[in-house]
Amino acid sequence: MTYAAPIADIRFALEAAADFWSLRARFPDLDEDLLAAILEGAAQLANDALAPINRSGDLAGVSLQDDVVTAAPGFAEAYAAYREAGWLSLSADPAYGGQGLPRALSLAVMETVQSANMSFGLLPMLSLGAIEALEQHGAPDQKALYLGKLISGEWAGTMNLTEPQAGSDLGVLTTKAVPQADGSYAISGQKIFITWGEHELTPNIIHLVLARIEGAPAGSKGISLFIVPKFRDEDGSRNAVRCIGLEEKMGIHASPTCTMAYEGAQGWLVGEENRGLAAMFTMMNSARLNVGLQGVAIAEAAYQKAHAYAQERKQSGGLIITHPDVRRMLLLARAKIQAGRALCYATAVAADSGDKAREDLLTPLAKAWCTELGVEAASLGVQVHGGMGFIEEAGAAQFYRDARIAPIYEGTNGIQAIDLYGRKLMSDRGEAMRALIAEAHAASGKALHLKEAAQALDHATDYMLSAPREDGLAGAFEYLMLAGDVAAGTLLAQGLSRDDAKDKRALMEIYDAYVLARAPSRLAGIKIGAGALKAV
Amino acid sequence: MTYAAPIADIRFALEAAADFWSLRARFPDLDEDLLAAILEGAAQLANDALAPINRSGDLAGVSLQDDVVTAAPGFAEAYAAYREAGWLSLSADPAYGGQGLPRALSLAVMETVQSANMSFGLLPMLSLGAIEALEQHGAPDQKALYLGKLISGEWAGTMNLTEPQAGSDLGVLTTKAVPQADGSYAISGQKIFITWGEHELTPNIIHLVLARIEGAPAGSKGISLFIVPKFRDEDGSRNAVRCIGLEEKMGIHASPTCTMAYEGAQGWLVGEENRGLAAMFTMMNSARLNVGLQGVAIAEAAYQKAHAYAQERKQSGGLIITHPDVRRMLLLARAKIQAGRALCYATAVAADSGDKAREDLLTPLAKAWCTELGVEAASLGVQVHGGMGFIEEAGAAQFYRDARIAPIYEGTNGIQAIDLYGRKLMSDRGEAMRALIAEAHAASGKALHLKEAAQALDHATDYMLSAPREDGLAGAFEYLMLAGDVAAGTLLAQGLSRDDAKDKRALMEIYDAYVLARAPSRLAGIKIGAGALKAV
Repeated sequence: MTYAAPIADIRFALEAAADFWSLRARFPDLDEDLLAAILEGAAQLANDALAPINRSGDLAGVSLQDDVVTAAPGFAEAYAAYREAGWLSLSADPAYGGQGLPRALSLAVMETVQSANMSFGLLPMLSLGAIEALEQHGAPDQKALYLGKLISGEWAGTMNLTEPQAGSDLGVLTTKAVPQADGSYAISGQKIFITWGEHELTPNIIHLVLARIEGAPAGSKGISLFIVPKFRDEDGSRNAVRCIGLEEKMGIHASPTCTMAYEGAQGWLVGEENRGLAAMFTMMNSARLNVGLQGVAIAEAAYQKAHAYAQERKQSGGLIITHPDVRRMLLLARAKIQAGRALCYATAVAADSGDKAREDLLTPLAKAWCTELGVEAASLGVQVHGGMGFIEEAGAAQFYRDARIAPIYEGTNGIQAIDLYGRKLMSDRGEAMRALIAEAHAASGKALHLKEAAQALDHATDYMLSAPREDGLAGAFEYLMLAGDVAAGTLLAQGLSRDDAKDKRALMEIYDAYVLARAPSRLAGIKIGAGALKAV
Repeated sequence: MTYAAPIADIRFALEAAADFWSLRARFPDLDEDLLAAILEGAAQLANDALAPINRSGDLAGVSLQDDVVTAAPGFAEAYAAYREAGWLSLSADPAYGGQGLPRALSLAVMETVQSANMSFGLLPMLSLGAIEALEQHGAPDQKALYLGKLISGEWAGTMNLTEPQAGSDLGVLTTKAVPQADGSYAISGQKIFITWGEHELTPNIIHLVLARIEGAPAGSKGISLFIVPKFRDEDGSRNAVRCIGLEEKMGIHASPTCTMAYEGAQGWLVGEENRGLAAMFTMMNSARLNVGLQGVAIAEAAYQKAHAYAQERKQSGGLIITHPDVRRMLLLARAKIQAGRALCYATAVAADSGDKAREDLLTPLAKAWCTELGVEAASLGVQVHGGMGFIEEAGAAQFYRDARIAPIYEGTNGIQAIDLYGRKLMSDRGEAMRALIAEAHAASGKALHLKEAAQALDHATDYMLSAPREDGLAGAFEYLMLAGDVAAGTLLAQGLSRDDAKDKRALMEIYDAYVLARAPSRLAGIKIGAGALKAV
């Protein structure tokens, strides 16, 4: 069997756990029929068009010849169907053809896409990032030129950050932008790890590129953001940007990961000079949530495949799903998936509500906690398959390979931990985190171990706020994981009062025993201190 | 950089943690010079001959044409070097050319082989299993015919258990053995997942095959073990066994995983009729420990690569190894590796000492706990690499792919948990486990959290001994992991009194915070009960 979008679980996470309907005040057009219709439409595309080309895309991969990147078979047709259904426009600005619906809804659609085909899902995901960056930072003429076609999906967008000598550290990037007489810039340099940086699925590709204007200050305060279209809009002529290499990766084989050469390409400044990182962070915040969701999505796909296998594979006279340890693996995955799903949707609802503090706090949790979950659930999915899990044909292995990128890109999970500790926690001295802890306490009647987990998080927050910075950094990853355990568990618990929550109550019991009961024991790792880590 | 055998760490685990020198009473030839010479010789082979063909073997894989399996380039030469050095003979019976040294020593050699090249390592590992099975169950004439050539490495051995319809459940296997007039049997059936089932690295291959003699009782009590040589020993004629397919796997690409067709192949009974499973378990016990060691070995290789990368990769003005979270990942891996290594060697020392109860108890811990570690450390290794971790060329990804098989084969880790609970724990009503707990208490002065972890294991043991069987099975995996946490931590702690243990004391601190402090919280999962797992 192949993937079937879990509409009921998605709706439960949105409506019962993430308080989706609170958005009705800001989005008056929202109603149940619309939600149901959108999720069913997305499910149809995911189940029928995207899932069937996931394994074939993994096998075929992509190729580069004479600057042309050829996608895996079926991807162009699938993208055409995706574009025609208008999925990119859901949460975009109505002034440019968008539907002005909540991002949470757009994210729910994206979940089904990423579960069905993560390689494919990266293409619209990057376009969505470009759309948001232009909506927030583009000049009116830039919006007029690009937004409509990005929102309709006619053109695709990319993010160009990383350079060979500068991975996570954007401050040292060297791509150059030289001002031209006509107000544009000539962009020169090399960018690596550019997802869907080149392809023929759309007639044009809009690259958002970080570069340094000649004479700009050194470091991260001298970086600007540019639009570099593959084809110039005025005359349709080809710009001096091309893909000069594709990475051989462990997974997401059908997603081209390009090395892009900018050879005096014509680009236009987005926003202010030297404020490029701030603009890029807009895009990255949204991308980080989307990557967190990829973790949930790949976990769901892996879970479904393992569950189906366990229901059909006989062993010792019975189906393997009758073995308690197989059930343990399946339920552990499913419980964490439902909790992680709620965490992602709650982050989007916070963004849609304009609750910036909550959005900022939850974003690194969603990115890191859910992508760790993606790897864990994909690994459990392999294990449930036994020997077949290691055979590529069975498909479980692909999820395990694909899932592994998500803890790395859009800022490694270690960087998410630094973001949570150094930026989010410190900027309000823990206020948003304390609010989250209060929520956990309020929901703690619904799970045996939620209260002690919340107390541990409270205690850990005290520690992080008062620890010397090096000690805080030493504990930051475990602190993030503890916060994720509590936040996702709280959201799972909050949905339980609904009448139809019986199967979710069973998942809460699992989550309680395997996650919340273990959460307080993260304190030793959080408080380990930088000194203990010197021994490496 | 490539792999360099960690001789000091191996010696520390053997000598300080696993009490290797207690074997001198049984092995009077043992001395420090011998140990040092053997480890240096093994290291040289691993570093210089095996590690250099690990990545190329992954890329080239193996191929099958006209019943002939072609190994990856360089593997035949590497095997010749391995054979010539006599590594297979270390712990084998001196009556057949073996050196009669402890298995613990043979295991230490094998660690370096598996770290350097897991695909290669499987070939001698399977031969060792065949050697042990024949040493213990073969008739004198069988020993005379086969043991010498297996021990010298001239011929290779295989294990043929799994059939398409029977994975972990050997009771339902259908391969048939029909008695012939000359006392041999005609073996017919299909076996799958046969590691190094066919190759040209040795002029003959000795298959050990489970089959059912015509008219034998149904189920596991009707299974017998047979020797089926690829070429008959009397006249060198080709036997009717051939490889009819190779699996496309996620990892260990250079190790051929064969589907073997037995088409009336001539075979000879090993041991008694219908007692084949017992004989196979001999072989599997040793193989399980070897697979556990593979977990440690692949973790070590992944750690070394990540450590080297972190020391050379610059980021934010410094090397990434200066980041506390990178140090956390490296140290977490290294601490668990050193503990897992001690666990494997202690299991071998127990076998060498004739302490069957301890060997039996530790074997499932070594297999399951250490193979989970292999996956975890390989995943951490990828993460330390950042984006490069996902690029195949960097090599971290291969470890992540290769490591994933170890929790599955030789009995999935779920099956190890059932073995620990249903067989090992129940057979002596916890006596061997209580002895282990007493050891932990004795060592608990050396680690902050060892005492509470040991108490939790004691409590969990009470629970497992008194719980209804279904509830015991529901908690068995977490119980095994808790026992592994404690056993490996105890062994790590036991080595610390040595003068040269300074860096190991630092690892103990890490292990204490990230593993032992978390161990008691496994109780909730252990005691979850079968009822909570019904919801799947």
